[in-house]
Amino acid sequence: MSSSGNCYKLRLLAELLQLPYEWIELDIRTGVTRQAEFLSKNPNGRVPTLEYESGRHLAESDAILVYLAEGSAFWPGSRLDRAQALQWMFFEQYSHEPYIAVARFICLLLPAEHPRRGELARLHERGYQALAVMEQHLARRAFFVGETCSVADIALFAYTHAASDGGFDLQRYPAVRAWIARIEALPRFVPMAAEH
Amino acid sequence: MSSSGNCYKLRLLAELLQLPYEWIELDIRTGVTRQAEFLSKNPNGRVPTLEYESGRHLAESDAILVYLAEGSAFWPGSRLDRAQALQWMFFEQYSHEPYIAVARFICLLLPAEHPRRGELARLHERGYQALAVMEQHLARRAFFVGETCSVADIALFAYTHAASDGGFDLQRYPAVRAWIARIEALPRFVPMAAEH
Repeated sequence: MSSSGNCYKLRLLAELLQLPYEWIELDIRTGVTRQAEFLSKNPNGRVPTLEYESGRHLAESDAILVYLAEGSAFWPGSRLDRAQALQWMFFEQYSHEPYIAVARFICLLLPAEHPRRGELARLHERGYQALAVMEQHLARRAFFVGETCSVADIALFAYTHAASDGGFDLQRYPAVRAWIARIEALPRFVPMAAEH
Repeated sequence: MSSSGNCYKLRLLAELLQLPYEWIELDIRTGVTRQAEFLSKNPNGRVPTLEYESGRHLAESDAILVYLAEGSAFWPGSRLDRAQALQWMFFEQYSHEPYIAVARFICLLLPAEHPRRGELARLHERGYQALAVMEQHLARRAFFVGETCSVADIALFAYTHAASDGGFDLQRYPAVRAWIARIEALPRFVPMAAEH
């Protein structure tokens, strides 16, 4: 689903690494990921799902990022740096995406009068906590782990750079904004699809 | 915090691997993890946090599991198996722990009349979805990835085996119960501390 940050992570890494791939577009709002054909590929019913060989599938965006990046400069070479990359990816899925991505989903994809808008105040509070942790870390470094862009940056970039879609103001996070600009300047960078 | 499943994961793996460690007990209910001293170790303010060398810290339970397991039989040897282990660990942190662990927290650690008990119906619905995904996977295999216990099993075991603390009934998941018994039978297995 092109407008999903979790799916965009994979497209961005594949383009940065010049990996060949076929993109199959699904709209989760149609219910397709809860139907038997898709559940046979990913029993948890979520996008993205990678078919890495015919009939064999891998789920979870950040696990797929690691799978695609192993052997490249985007997966760190030392045990400690790999653990730190994973630390930031688990941070992304537990303390960042459930607030920043969900706020974006509510603002972009649900009707203006939808009752879930009542969740936004709490989502903003928690999302700003995550952005503050990122700002503190990036104040002293160019990327999350080591000296170059890794899977941790790709994972965190996807929803951070689109946080304003969910009503977040990034003006108070200059280090985060400078980091976003560094990623957008990478060779072969591709932007996320706009929501229709 | 001994009663935390996320902390127990690390104790269990350390005991299974016979790793030397010092355990520093914290009670998150005192607010200690939101104070400056702890935040200087983990800016996200969560347990567990590993001090892997003097003054250097690593956060996120599942990232710490990978760090401790690298080079052992608990971290798979093939790229694909490693990715599948990570898939299940991200599943645990995104689709399992936020429901099964949070229901346990509400039932065990909050007063009986606490307003958060109103969340339990939704937590049970989502938690049972996660247990159903696990049951389907385990119906045809002994462990989550490959033929032996890996970090993915440790990550999922911690809160699954204690799900009844949060009001979940595991009787309808025979493959999950058989898998719990297999892990409890491992050499050097240690149980999770009971809640005080």
